[in-house]
Amino acid sequence: MMITPWETLESSEGIKSKIFRHRVVKRKSFDSGDVGDFDVIDCYNWVNIVALTKFDEVIMVKQYRHGSDSITLEIPGGAIEISEDPGTAGKRELLEETGYSCEKMEFLGKVNPNPAFMTNTCYTYLATGCIKISTQKLDHLEEIDVELYSKDEILEMLKNGTIDHSLVVSAFFYLLTKK
Amino acid sequence: MMITPWETLESSEGIKSKIFRHRVVKRKSFDSGDVGDFDVIDCYNWVNIVALTKFDEVIMVKQYRHGSDSITLEIPGGAIEISEDPGTAGKRELLEETGYSCEKMEFLGKVNPNPAFMTNTCYTYLATGCIKISTQKLDHLEEIDVELYSKDEILEMLKNGTIDHSLVVSAFFYLLTKK
Repeated sequence: MMITPWETLESSEGIKSKIFRHRVVKRKSFDSGDVGDFDVIDCYNWVNIVALTKFDEVIMVKQYRHGSDSITLEIPGGAIEISEDPGTAGKRELLEETGYSCEKMEFLGKVNPNPAFMTNTCYTYLATGCIKISTQKLDHLEEIDVELYSKDEILEMLKNGTIDHSLVVSAFFYLLTKK
Repeated sequence: MMITPWETLESSEGIKSKIFRHRVVKRKSFDSGDVGDFDVIDCYNWVNIVALTKFDEVIMVKQYRHGSDSITLEIPGGAIEISEDPGTAGKRELLEETGYSCEKMEFLGKVNPNPAFMTNTCYTYLATGCIKISTQKLDHLEEIDVELYSKDEILEMLKNGTIDHSLVVSAFFYLLTKK
């Protein structure tokens, strides 16, 4: 069998929330002729930043997360606004969430959070030479603690499950395998 | 500031689809007293398997994905059924999607796909000594090609973006950093 894309026949909108839109898409397989309804979730594209201070400390954000109903340790990041490029969004999110600015930003990699039902992309950047230049500028209902860790501490927390957000794990995959 | 969890005041159900359920949860911050409505998505827990043949080839699945509207290369996996343990589900998904059985399964790691709005967990296992013992047993509307790659080919495709599913990238993070 040679896998080919399916033909889209219809797309009807379901719930539209602050952070995503749900659609039911009717598609037809070119191979089998089968037709099915498939749920998809549209979100804005996201950006995450592995941010290192001048002393090579990793800048982490600690926050309560409403999906997992738990406090997580993550790298800074957020949604990319329409007509904003990923690198610019990364610098903005880093500054808003942590008050840090960086000397240099470089692209590390990009993932699809879950191609089975999500349509968006998450970009990851490496920000180096970061220094604190301001206070946080948090959105309404955002509560974020900023914490600094050594790279060894981060690796240990990734391995022992303290850090378990798939997009953060992916970001450190790209950092570890960077040329 | 010391980050603390929020108190859940209400949880109302929105759309319930084949693969997820949407809820709006009303929560109150213990710190600020602020109250907000937050969107969450419940899915079954998932399991993914890095499966190696006796010749150390990686067993990959190629399929059309309705979220990304593209053909992806992933590791085998799927939803864990109620009252099924993750390892058993992993063996079942591996056999159904690829026809391969393994000699040994070991836990590699687990992630929250996105704690910001998803409540579930994705477990990753390493299956070794795999041999083909049957044909695929695919669900209705499932079309999957099985392909074998060397570990070096997989690493190259992870780095060049050919493989870009965040849960697959996370799985290989755990494989690379395994003791």
